[in-house]
Amino acid sequence: MRLQEARDMKDLNVSRRILMGPGPVDVDPRVLSAGALPMLSHLDPEFLKIMDDVVIAMREIFQTKNEFAAPVPGTGHAGMEASLVSLLEPGDTAVVAVHGVFGERMADIVERAGASLVRVDTEWGEPVDPKAVKKALDENPDAKLFAIVHGETSTGILQPMEEITDLMRGRDTLLVVDTVSSLGGVEVQVDKWGIDVSYAGSQKCLSAPPGMAPVTMNEKAVDIVRSRKTKVQSWYLDLSMLLGYWGKERFYHHTAPINTVYSLREALRLYLEEGREANFARYAKNGEALQAGLEAMGLRLPVPKDLRMPQLNVVEIPGGIEDKELRGALVRRYGIEIGGGLGKFAGRVWRIGLMGYSGKEENIILLLTALNSLFAESGVKFNKDAGVEAALEVLKD
Amino acid sequence: MRLQEARDMKDLNVSRRILMGPGPVDVDPRVLSAGALPMLSHLDPEFLKIMDDVVIAMREIFQTKNEFAAPVPGTGHAGMEASLVSLLEPGDTAVVAVHGVFGERMADIVERAGASLVRVDTEWGEPVDPKAVKKALDENPDAKLFAIVHGETSTGILQPMEEITDLMRGRDTLLVVDTVSSLGGVEVQVDKWGIDVSYAGSQKCLSAPPGMAPVTMNEKAVDIVRSRKTKVQSWYLDLSMLLGYWGKERFYHHTAPINTVYSLREALRLYLEEGREANFARYAKNGEALQAGLEAMGLRLPVPKDLRMPQLNVVEIPGGIEDKELRGALVRRYGIEIGGGLGKFAGRVWRIGLMGYSGKEENIILLLTALNSLFAESGVKFNKDAGVEAALEVLKD
Repeated sequence: MRLQEARDMKDLNVSRRILMGPGPVDVDPRVLSAGALPMLSHLDPEFLKIMDDVVIAMREIFQTKNEFAAPVPGTGHAGMEASLVSLLEPGDTAVVAVHGVFGERMADIVERAGASLVRVDTEWGEPVDPKAVKKALDENPDAKLFAIVHGETSTGILQPMEEITDLMRGRDTLLVVDTVSSLGGVEVQVDKWGIDVSYAGSQKCLSAPPGMAPVTMNEKAVDIVRSRKTKVQSWYLDLSMLLGYWGKERFYHHTAPINTVYSLREALRLYLEEGREANFARYAKNGEALQAGLEAMGLRLPVPKDLRMPQLNVVEIPGGIEDKELRGALVRRYGIEIGGGLGKFAGRVWRIGLMGYSGKEENIILLLTALNSLFAESGVKFNKDAGVEAALEVLKD
Repeated sequence: MRLQEARDMKDLNVSRRILMGPGPVDVDPRVLSAGALPMLSHLDPEFLKIMDDVVIAMREIFQTKNEFAAPVPGTGHAGMEASLVSLLEPGDTAVVAVHGVFGERMADIVERAGASLVRVDTEWGEPVDPKAVKKALDENPDAKLFAIVHGETSTGILQPMEEITDLMRGRDTLLVVDTVSSLGGVEVQVDKWGIDVSYAGSQKCLSAPPGMAPVTMNEKAVDIVRSRKTKVQSWYLDLSMLLGYWGKERFYHHTAPINTVYSLREALRLYLEEGREANFARYAKNGEALQAGLEAMGLRLPVPKDLRMPQLNVVEIPGGIEDKELRGALVRRYGIEIGGGLGKFAGRVWRIGLMGYSGKEENIILLLTALNSLFAESGVKFNKDAGVEAALEVLKD
């Protein structure tokens, strides 16, 4: 009976969505096509060249001269775990700033790695206080690393980095920065900011399919990984071996996810073709337009203006609106998916992404129009028709 | 300058290969196309349905009624590591049969997991001796698991499983079987053989792109994973959480590699459309034809006939032939890639795969013709023109 069920499967097709959540995002058809190119093996010289392309592009996007700037073969979390477990040995101390789901996850991984964890907790929805970080680092001068999330996807907070990077200078402690949601959308200057290790994800502002987590490490971090006394607890996520495969040696480590590398390479090429600054400008303008539209409707954006990520906008769900019902209607009637709240913010906020190929003016207008119509039907009080107008006002400039 | 290099990238294209190594393998264009369908998010009901399709199909292919039969979001090794580290806790004992590279890797992972390792070593190129396994298990009655590779890709040995599964019966020790190279190509009967945990890879006989590692676990194993005293050392490869995402609960764990799941789903559908038995029959016949051809040329196949995997044929490199030079010429002139030797067998053997979409009669004939021509040029002694003839003789039946 089960076999019959399996044999009855039809060839795959999927509905077209407009993905305006926190990722994955819409992907340029050219990137999808690249992912459907014929298979090469993981040590084919043509494939090695594609890997080189990825590294060259990732260096540009991370704004680094680091030799190592290559993707871990897994989704964003794999980059987080690879970075942390490859640096930490049992007995090490790690200071972790926790101000949302992803800081929480870093803390979890640090503990799984058998290191001692020092948390710098911050209220959800607030940026991390540099003074609290300084205190924790001063109290733990031997800490191997300090880890912080740059763009906290769960709260929408873009952590101001200047004070953080300033207070790291002169310390031996490594600075590890999660740029999963920020990279490509706003400035991330790995070298200038003195970031030792950073990891991102393919499926956000880089606008590639999910499944790769670009990581970059400077020489100091590479030396630490290479001179470990113990083996990294994970074989699959052992950066000392990934360094060998993605570096000059080309040691076989694993069978790379070939097609996912193809599409990442193509997404990075298109990103650089548009240009880093042009991407930032597009996000800034689109974010401003969406925010203006939402505020004009009378909705509240809990994140202060100067701490917002333009590519991921958090908005409070107005009273009288049922979260899941509205998001369901958006998908059913308009094909638009926005993100719900995560963790403590579940049911309280929406997260509206403008990342990558999803970050288009027409999507903003369609979403505001859809919200306008659905709000009107629900009978909730809001400023009817004001949203689209306000957004268009920003976009026309 | 680097930025210029990045901006100068052309849109991606790749040469067409015929992949007759140990994987990845050629992929049906319909599978590649499925992988290029538009993005859905990882919690979209349509995507959840696709995940269900994958589970239903994997149960058929693993020949199991296990509830859990779902892919880990990584390449084959990720499945190995997820299985081992999710079962083992510090202080546990694991017995591992080592008769090639992949048994060696399991042993490595067991040690990284902080468990005590009991090795059952076997000469490379030999099958594991059930008596030695029995001895190790009798001496370690409290062992949490016994792990063995079914199809050792490095040596080409297909481990006879009957005696192994017989001697496991009545023991508490879990049986973990690596079926990365065997699954889909030859019989793997998870339930009938009493296998508690098995993992495979998408990029071999399942003929999907690399990047997913299907794992199945029976209730006994799931209970052990769910009732651990300590957290799994890996967050990303923690099967207790993957169970939640792929199971009924649908807890968000990670952003699934959407397109890779699409193409896996489509590859599994095509596999079942052809039929499990028909696949086995195709591999058996193709393997026989290739082996007949190679032997007729005068080459030596080191693996005894009854221990061969028809989908992965190991052949000694004849004296007078330079390994890399010949393999390079095969790629350059014919687009054919065959595998070199791995580990101790590097430079001594070739590994010729007939897996998935690469397992076609015309590929066998082209390869034998190519070898015939390249051998003739090199001046090595062999039975000219005998190979193709012998293979055709088998294939015409």
